[in-house]
Amino acid sequence: MERIPILRMGEFLLVTIQVDMHDRLATVLSDDLATRIFATRARGVLIDISALDMVDSFIARMLGSIAQMARVMDAETALVGMQPSVAMTLVEMGVELKGVRTALNVEKGMALLRARMDQVRADDDAPSQ
Amino acid sequence: MERIPILRMGEFLLVTIQVDMHDRLATVLSDDLATRIFATRARGVLIDISALDMVDSFIARMLGSIAQMARVMDAETALVGMQPSVAMTLVEMGVELKGVRTALNVEKGMALLRARMDQVRADDDAPSQ
Repeated sequence: MERIPILRMGEFLLVTIQVDMHDRLATVLSDDLATRIFATRARGVLIDISALDMVDSFIARMLGSIAQMARVMDAETALVGMQPSVAMTLVEMGVELKGVRTALNVEKGMALLRARMDQVRADDDAPSQ
Repeated sequence: MERIPILRMGEFLLVTIQVDMHDRLATVLSDDLATRIFATRARGVLIDISALDMVDSFIARMLGSIAQMARVMDAETALVGMQPSVAMTLVEMGVELKGVRTALNVEKGMALLRARMDQVRADDDAPSQ
């Protein structure tokens, strides 16, 4: 398996991570996502990690840098489906998911991103001081 | 990796296959899907195989039996994201995907399933002879 598929769902891109991440795969995913965000003008990225039993500091850092990259391209990132044991381990290890929003599942993640986008639009429409 | 995650998207369930399927994983996926269709009352199942470079007769048969199982539970199945090389190999090998609808990507697959559901509803509403 060389690539993690990126699925387009309306204005969002969906990635489900099912395999162990390593350096090269993480780089390929990040590159692919940047290309797809540009090509589809996606406003949000959903990353489903419900299949992962473990998230180490490498994966956490990778998710953080994907979110940062997406934000630069005007897309928000939501991490969905985190298992309770993963959440507990992250807290115990003191790993922070910087700049990454989380939601229980894909549907709630989409709602979160939509709410965020509506807020941004409302701010844009508001008269400037 | 023990399980393939099943994501709920409104009235559909989405499965992306990224790993090599073997007997046990196929059985687990089929069982999980049946349970989720029942629990969520899903009307459609989308199976994304864009990550697969190869679909052999075992996987084709498995996809066929998942579609059959879903239909018994009143849900339609659409196979999405098939790579051109996979399509050509399937035709060359003479493998049929019995009872499985196909679409280019997830969005088109959803549109296909929605159209099918609307048609079923229209048939239900039509006066009986």
